[in-house]
Amino acid sequence: MNQTTDVLDLAQATAAAAQARWLDWLRIPSVSAQPAHAGDCRTAATWARDRLAELGFTAELRETPGHPVVVAHHPGPDSGAGLQPRLLYYGHYDVQPAEPLELWESPPFEPAVVDGPHGRRVVARGAVDDKGQVAMWLEAFRAWHATIGTLPLPITVVIEGEEEVGSKHLEAFLHTYAPDLTADIAVISDTGMWNIDTPALCTSLRGLVYMQVDLHAAARDLHSGMFGGSALNPINALTKALGQLHGPDGRVQLDGFYDGVTDVPVEQAAQWADLGFDEAAFLGNVGLKTPVGERGRGGLERMWARPTADINGIWGGYTGPGSKTVIAAEASAKVSFRLVPGMDPDRVAASFEAFVRARVPADARLVFHDFGRSPGIRVAIDNRFVTAARDVMGEEYGRPAVLIGGGGSIPVVEAFKRILGLDTLLMGFGLQDDQIHSPNEKFEVACFRHGLRSHVRLLGRLSTDCI
Amino acid sequence: MNQTTDVLDLAQATAAAAQARWLDWLRIPSVSAQPAHAGDCRTAATWARDRLAELGFTAELRETPGHPVVVAHHPGPDSGAGLQPRLLYYGHYDVQPAEPLELWESPPFEPAVVDGPHGRRVVARGAVDDKGQVAMWLEAFRAWHATIGTLPLPITVVIEGEEEVGSKHLEAFLHTYAPDLTADIAVISDTGMWNIDTPALCTSLRGLVYMQVDLHAAARDLHSGMFGGSALNPINALTKALGQLHGPDGRVQLDGFYDGVTDVPVEQAAQWADLGFDEAAFLGNVGLKTPVGERGRGGLERMWARPTADINGIWGGYTGPGSKTVIAAEASAKVSFRLVPGMDPDRVAASFEAFVRARVPADARLVFHDFGRSPGIRVAIDNRFVTAARDVMGEEYGRPAVLIGGGGSIPVVEAFKRILGLDTLLMGFGLQDDQIHSPNEKFEVACFRHGLRSHVRLLGRLSTDCI
Repeated sequence: MNQTTDVLDLAQATAAAAQARWLDWLRIPSVSAQPAHAGDCRTAATWARDRLAELGFTAELRETPGHPVVVAHHPGPDSGAGLQPRLLYYGHYDVQPAEPLELWESPPFEPAVVDGPHGRRVVARGAVDDKGQVAMWLEAFRAWHATIGTLPLPITVVIEGEEEVGSKHLEAFLHTYAPDLTADIAVISDTGMWNIDTPALCTSLRGLVYMQVDLHAAARDLHSGMFGGSALNPINALTKALGQLHGPDGRVQLDGFYDGVTDVPVEQAAQWADLGFDEAAFLGNVGLKTPVGERGRGGLERMWARPTADINGIWGGYTGPGSKTVIAAEASAKVSFRLVPGMDPDRVAASFEAFVRARVPADARLVFHDFGRSPGIRVAIDNRFVTAARDVMGEEYGRPAVLIGGGGSIPVVEAFKRILGLDTLLMGFGLQDDQIHSPNEKFEVACFRHGLRSHVRLLGRLSTDCI
Repeated sequence: MNQTTDVLDLAQATAAAAQARWLDWLRIPSVSAQPAHAGDCRTAATWARDRLAELGFTAELRETPGHPVVVAHHPGPDSGAGLQPRLLYYGHYDVQPAEPLELWESPPFEPAVVDGPHGRRVVARGAVDDKGQVAMWLEAFRAWHATIGTLPLPITVVIEGEEEVGSKHLEAFLHTYAPDLTADIAVISDTGMWNIDTPALCTSLRGLVYMQVDLHAAARDLHSGMFGGSALNPINALTKALGQLHGPDGRVQLDGFYDGVTDVPVEQAAQWADLGFDEAAFLGNVGLKTPVGERGRGGLERMWARPTADINGIWGGYTGPGSKTVIAAEASAKVSFRLVPGMDPDRVAASFEAFVRARVPADARLVFHDFGRSPGIRVAIDNRFVTAARDVMGEEYGRPAVLIGGGGSIPVVEAFKRILGLDTLLMGFGLQDDQIHSPNEKFEVACFRHGLRSHVRLLGRLSTDCI
């Protein structure tokens, strides 16, 4: 079967309806981190299940201790039974919190279609991460289904609801359902292009250790005149400890933090150099000029191949207008580490705890919370799926897909390899300025369209390859 | 005239009405730091003006660029015209913010009269600081007025509304109205007793420099995976800078911070040692055990005679439940310094700015806000007013009043000396566990009663002394 051209034509003719469905999904505020949105998470899962069922999938929600996972299976065409590869598409229906709300130019869960330098774009929380990218392949399936009455290959779909909170129940889920999730390759669209004209496959991702530390001091807030000079100030103590996270060379000072970290291979470094990354322009887009991070490392290397430590949030004491001369009872911070392959997330977490404990005064009572741990990963690039993906993206864009690294984390990729023995194709269509996790997250309609068409082509190419 | 006993009897007989008036005043949420309470501040000022007018004072509100000042004059008895000393009573009607509201056992502006180990106590924001202590002398005036139809001495009253935000307009006010504020001594009840059985006069106060620093980085929140390792994280940068405020010896590391600071004179140190301060018990009352602050200094010395640096509030990034992998656009902290005599507040403020500027990366844009500057002060103790105050407090309590230092700041004391040439009598009746500036601020009814009676006695004693 090689009806790819017909499918692309149909996708073109039905683009408005495809976009409308994507926007419907974006209207569901499925913020996994916030308990108040648990019902919305389930609604977003149900929405995806119903769309898959419309295309002939056997689709259901499977429960976890947290938000449910959408699992769906399609047998593909009768003709290819047993011969074709089975693809496992993974995505997530949950989104990051939308706060700070006052910085949104339109409400985060009322998608706005606005004009930008690359044509129209959709502005909403989840526009690209990951509902928009999932919607691309859902619509690719739909176009195939509408053209040939089935899908050209057997497909399994897993759409989880806790990716933005560390995928904490997914590992147990994969263990439980492993026999039901066999496939030949996993496909994930949750990464980016090199730029709007240049498609990319991502070959590595950083892992993540995300923790919160609460430092409790006195039983109540104290007057800083009466107690200052005697009583432990938890904000003083917390800033003192966390202020030592980085050394003057920009390196993270946790014990053993760089154990297992290796330098980028020469050939990969050369390939990245060929990309011509302009860090000044990259930072200029967000109002900055001067890179931070480890001294003596290149920009892409720092973001793709070196670990980091970032305080993602901090709070304590009086934060209202004016002054209050208080010594607070407690202070807290959210601290995360991006990891590269070779680092052990559990050791990093333990080292962080020890680092803070060693740096606070006697009276400080510390409580640590764990919001997810995943290792950095490299994906295989020496298989036919990668070759096929590079080819079809090249056809779609008229230029070859480049191989890039990713600075973010998709914990499931490592779990797929370890638990299911699956390699993953990281074929994403986001742009650097999509403002994911920020106010005014957006996805270019052009990226959505080319991504959808690339997925259509990939299905056609693999079905032709393999029969 | 020596009708002190009659006045004390009358105060005893009318104690319930006095307490009711005090509670009425506490119901007005006159939080000077919060613009939403500006109207309440004026209401609290008007309340005080009206009470003074009832006692024959010429009383009015005088405007400032901030909250108004209550100024009132009473000529005293005809008989003493020109011979008696004029006393200037100073207090403040504004209160600290009540936040965090969830920690109050009763609403902060609905005074609760509850039982405690020392009898009944009043729980409310401002119960002691400073409405309760002002109400003591207002009621002492009232008892005299009810007994003899006038006051025994000429009295001027100044009650300001910006003490809790650094008295920022009071200095200009004193310059403007200096000719109208001549007096022989200022009397302030805004300090504490040594303990519930031991009255005290306070002989020194620490000054205060209170600033806020905002560190602005990227133009928007960033994804920590995409930008981590390249983009400036303002929370990392702010904690790194503020984490260096104290050295390993507990000393504040601003350039020149200790310039002008002198050791406690031997005789004063000996006198403080006689007080038998138990720092472990002091800290144990608030759930702590181990003193912080400068190594090698005594507990009272650290709180009364050494400068400090405290971060009173800090905020930035994601502070909600769970995790958000964000690099924030900005972070802020409120930082204050308690100063001792000899230190220059302006130099401390400038040194703090320079300290932070020297420690943040190139892209950090810093904005500093100034919430008040006042020097540390020593008050004169070699005058007849101090002698009289010690005597009458000794009579009231049956034991001598001790001389103590104060760790807090009452900026007006230095301004009175410098601008009006006035010494101040710091005669306060608070206790260490009054939780001023904290949730559940309280004032013991016993302290209020003895304080009121001590003020009655002081007026009687000074009027007898001087005619």
